Amino acid sequence: MVDKKLGGAGLRGQSAGETALCTVGKTGSGLTYRGYDVKDLAANAQFEEVAYLLLYGKLPNQAELDSYKTRLKSMRNLPDALKIVLENIPKDAHPMDVMRTGCSMLGNLETEASDFSDQLDHIDRMLAIFPGMINYWYNYSHKGIRVEVNTDADSIAEQFLWTLHDKKPEPLHVQVMHASLILYAEHEFNASTFTGRVCASTLSDIHSVVTGAIGSLRGPLHGGANEAAMDMIEQWQSADEAEAAIMGMLERKEKIMGFGHAVYRESDPRNAIIKEWSKKLSEQVGDTHLYAVSERCEAVMWREKKLFCNADFFHASAYNFMGIPTKLFTPIFVCSRVSGWTAHAMEQRANNRIIRPSADYIGPEPATWVDISQR
Amino acid sequence: MVDKKLGGAGLRGQSAGETALCTVGKTGSGLTYRGYDVKDLAANAQFEEVAYLLLYGKLPNQAELDSYKTRLKSMRNLPDALKIVLENIPKDAHPMDVMRTGCSMLGNLETEASDFSDQLDHIDRMLAIFPGMINYWYNYSHKGIRVEVNTDADSIAEQFLWTLHDKKPEPLHVQVMHASLILYAEHEFNASTFTGRVCASTLSDIHSVVTGAIGSLRGPLHGGANEAAMDMIEQWQSADEAEAAIMGMLERKEKIMGFGHAVYRESDPRNAIIKEWSKKLSEQVGDTHLYAVSERCEAVMWREKKLFCNADFFHASAYNFMGIPTKLFTPIFVCSRVSGWTAHAMEQRANNRIIRPSADYIGPEPATWVDISQR
Repeated sequence: MVDKKLGGAGLRGQSAGETALCTVGKTGSGLTYRGYDVKDLAANAQFEEVAYLLLYGKLPNQAELDSYKTRLKSMRNLPDALKIVLENIPKDAHPMDVMRTGCSMLGNLETEASDFSDQLDHIDRMLAIFPGMINYWYNYSHKGIRVEVNTDADSIAEQFLWTLHDKKPEPLHVQVMHASLILYAEHEFNASTFTGRVCASTLSDIHSVVTGAIGSLRGPLHGGANEAAMDMIEQWQSADEAEAAIMGMLERKEKIMGFGHAVYRESDPRNAIIKEWSKKLSEQVGDTHLYAVSERCEAVMWREKKLFCNADFFHASAYNFMGIPTKLFTPIFVCSRVSGWTAHAMEQRANNRIIRPSADYIGPEPATWVDISQR
Repeated sequence: MVDKKLGGAGLRGQSAGETALCTVGKTGSGLTYRGYDVKDLAANAQFEEVAYLLLYGKLPNQAELDSYKTRLKSMRNLPDALKIVLENIPKDAHPMDVMRTGCSMLGNLETEASDFSDQLDHIDRMLAIFPGMINYWYNYSHKGIRVEVNTDADSIAEQFLWTLHDKKPEPLHVQVMHASLILYAEHEFNASTFTGRVCASTLSDIHSVVTGAIGSLRGPLHGGANEAAMDMIEQWQSADEAEAAIMGMLERKEKIMGFGHAVYRESDPRNAIIKEWSKKLSEQVGDTHLYAVSERCEAVMWREKKLFCNADFFHASAYNFMGIPTKLFTPIFVCSRVSGWTAHAMEQRANNRIIRPSADYIGPEPATWVDISQR
C-alpha cells in the first residue's frame, strides 16, 4: 500500500468524506444546513425545526413540529442513577467533563440497539435531556438545589433557561436561545464532528459518538471561545478602556479569542445575527457598558487586523445578559451541536467504511532487543 | 482553499500525520514499537517496560522499572465517588460503556492541568486504576462483591487477574497477561488512536482523549473481535464439528471474526505469540477441545481462503483458559492500549495543529426559506 502524503498538517483543506448536511464558507462567508441559509433559519425557525431538518431530512410542517416538540418534552426525565452520578461530581469540575460523563452514563442506562434501529429515539432523548442534565448538576453542586427538570417549558431553548434559573424565563430570552442554538447546530467536519464520525465508523453506539465529540469540543482550540471572550470583556468598564487594553494585547501579540475563523475568509455569517440579539438584550437589561465594550473590540480588531468577529464573540455578552454563568457557555454549545453530531453519525452509518488513516513514520530504525541487565 | 479529494473512503492508505511510536506492516507483516520488534518485547519484557518505552521514550533499566512499578502500584485506589458511579451501573450494561464512563468520571475527580504539566501523572493513574475499575464493577454488579483493588499484585497484568478473581493468580497466567497486554499496547493510527489524536488536537484534556478512544474501540469493526471469536468457537465440541461449521459459514458467506487484517497482508505477527501461550494454557488446564477447535479453524481458513489469524483469534481461547469472562475481553484491550493512546496524545500535543478536514458536499442546492404555514 502506498501512502499518499497530505500537504498540510491537521488534514487542512483535505476532504475526509462526503456530507449532505452542511456547507461552510463556500462563497467565502455562507453557512447552509441542508441547503437552507443559516440566516433564514435563525431569523424564522425554532431550534426544534432545525434539529428536525438535520435529523429527519426536511423542515417539518406544523403538525410534524408540534408532534416532535411533544415527543421531546416527554423525554426530559433524568433517571435516578444519572442523578446520583451528577450529585457525585464536585462543584469545581469542568462543566464539559460533566456533560461527557452524563452522556456516557446515559449510555449505560439506555443502551442503543446494536443494529441502530432505535438510533433516533436515543438522539432525541439526548436533545431533550441535556439541558436539564447540566443544570441539575450546576444547581446541585453550586446551590445545593435538586432542580425540577420536568418543567412546562415549550422548547429546548426554554428548558435550558428554566432549569438553570428554576423559573419560567422571559419570552425574549427564549427567542434568543432559539437563535443561538440554531447558529451552533451544525458546522461540517469540524474537530468534534469529525471525532464523532471516526467513532461512528467503527459502528460503535451513539452515546460513544456523542461522548467523544463532547471531549473534543472541550478543547480550547475548538469550543470555549465564547467563554474566553467573556473572561476578557468583563474586565473592562468602558469602550475606551477596552480599546486601550486590546491595543496593548495586540502589541504584545497576545491571542484574542472570538475573532477570525479557520474556514471563513470574509466574515462569519453567524455574527450579525447574535450581535443584533446581544444589542436587544443590552437595552432590555439596562446594560451600561458590556455591549459598548464588545462593539469597540469588534471595531478595533477590524481596524487593526482586518479580523472579523466569529459566532462566539457576541454570544459572550448575549449569554451574560441572560444571567447564564460563563462556565455553562460551552455546555449550551453541546445542547445544540448534538443535533449536528448525531446527523453526521447517521450519515456515516448509512454509507460506512471505517476511518483508519496511515501515518508517516519518523521514529527510530529497527532496534535490537537489549536485556534489562544490559541497559 | 482548494479541497484535495482523497482516493479512498475512510482515509485508507492516506497519511494523516507523523508518528515515532510504531510501524505496522512495513514489511508486510512486522510490528515495531519505537523500533523494537513486538516479538522481542512480548517474549522478553513485562508490560510495564513497554508502557515505559511508549510513554517515556526508552526501555527502562532495572532501577527505572522498579521505581515505575512501585509508582503504578501506589496509584490503584478507586476514589469513593467513582465507586458510587460503578455501583450504579447495571449488570447488563456494555462493559465498554463502563470503561468509558469510569474514565470520564475520573476526569471530574482528578482533572488534568490545562497546561498538561501533569499529563504523565494522569496517564500512569489510568494505567494503574483501569484493571481494578472494571473488575470492581464486574464483581459488584454480577456477584454483589465489593472487591479489594488495593492488592499486593506486582504488575498491571497480575492486578487484572487478581481483582477479577479476588485472589492471587498463578504465575503462568500473569506471564500470559504480560504478553497479551504487550501485543495490544500500540498499533499506529487505528480508529481509536486516531479518535484520540483528533481530540488531543483541540488541546482537550487526557481523560477526554481516552474516553473518546474507548468509545471507538467499542465498535464491532474495531475492538471486540476476540469476543466474537470466543462466541463462535465455544459452540463447538470438536475440531471436526468446527470444520464442518466453518465450511457452512463460508458457503453462506458469513463473516468469520479473528481472521485477516486491514493493514497486514501476509500474517499478523502477534498471532504466533498468543497462539503459543494458548497452547500452554490448554495443556495446563486440561482442555479437551477448545485449542484443537481453534487450530482447526486456523487451518481451514488458510486452506479455503488464504486468510491468517490476527491477534484476536487465539486470544479468545487463551483468555477463556484463564477464566476471564468473554465480556471482559475488550476492556483488557483498553487496559493495554491506553498506553498507546496516551503516547499518541503526548506526541500530538508536542507538535500540534487542530485536525479539521473538509468534506465533499453532496447535499441539496441552496434552498429558499418556506414559512411553516406553507409546508
